[in-house]
Amino acid sequence: MPQPLQGAGRDAALAKLPDWQPVDGRDAIQRELHFADFVEAFAFITEIALQAEKMDHHPEWFNVYNRVEIVLSSHDAGGITDRDIMLAQAIDRAAARYS
Amino acid sequence: MPQPLQGAGRDAALAKLPDWQPVDGRDAIQRELHFADFVEAFAFITEIALQAEKMDHHPEWFNVYNRVEIVLSSHDAGGITDRDIMLAQAIDRAAARYS
Repeated sequence: MPQPLQGAGRDAALAKLPDWQPVDGRDAIQRELHFADFVEAFAFITEIALQAEKMDHHPEWFNVYNRVEIVLSSHDAGGITDRDIMLAQAIDRAAARYS
Repeated sequence: MPQPLQGAGRDAALAKLPDWQPVDGRDAIQRELHFADFVEAFAFITEIALQAEKMDHHPEWFNVYNRVEIVLSSHDAGGITDRDIMLAQAIDRAAARYS
C-alpha cells in the first residue's frame, strides 16, 4: 500500500512542481492548463490518459473547450504519494510541448 | 445566434432525455455515467470528443477512473439550445452501447 508523502521528502517533491497548487480541504494538488482550442486540449488529454492507464494511476480532471483542470491524489492512500508526483511530472512534460 | 429553448418546445425536447437532470442555478442539463473501468470510460469520452468537435459544440465534463459527469449548455446563448439536445442525444446513443 502506498503511503502519503510527508515531511522533507514531500517538500522536496512538491518543490519540483511549481505549476501545481494545493487543493483546499484535501491532500491533493491541482493544475489548470489552457490550449489553443478543443482539438489541442483533447490531444493533450489523450496523451495523459494513455500515460495514466500505463501507470495504473488516474487523474480527476475537468475539461471545457480549451481548458483542462487536473487534480491528483492517491485515493487508496488518502493523500499525495510518489505516484501523484510521477503523473504530475508526466503532465508537466506533455504540457511544456504546448506552451 | 442560437436562442435558448423555451416553452412547449423545450419541454418536448427535454422529455426525450430522461437520463438528464437540470443543473442547480443554471440553464443547463447534466448526466452521470459509469463504465467498467478507465479504458472503457475513455473510449466513450473519445467518441463524444470527436462528435462534439464535428458539431462545433463542446461539453463541460469531468472524469475520474470509470465515472464521467457531463454538463451541457450553450454558453453563447446563455442556456439550453437545440445544439445541446443534439449532443445529449449523441451521448445517449453512445452510452447505450455500454449498458
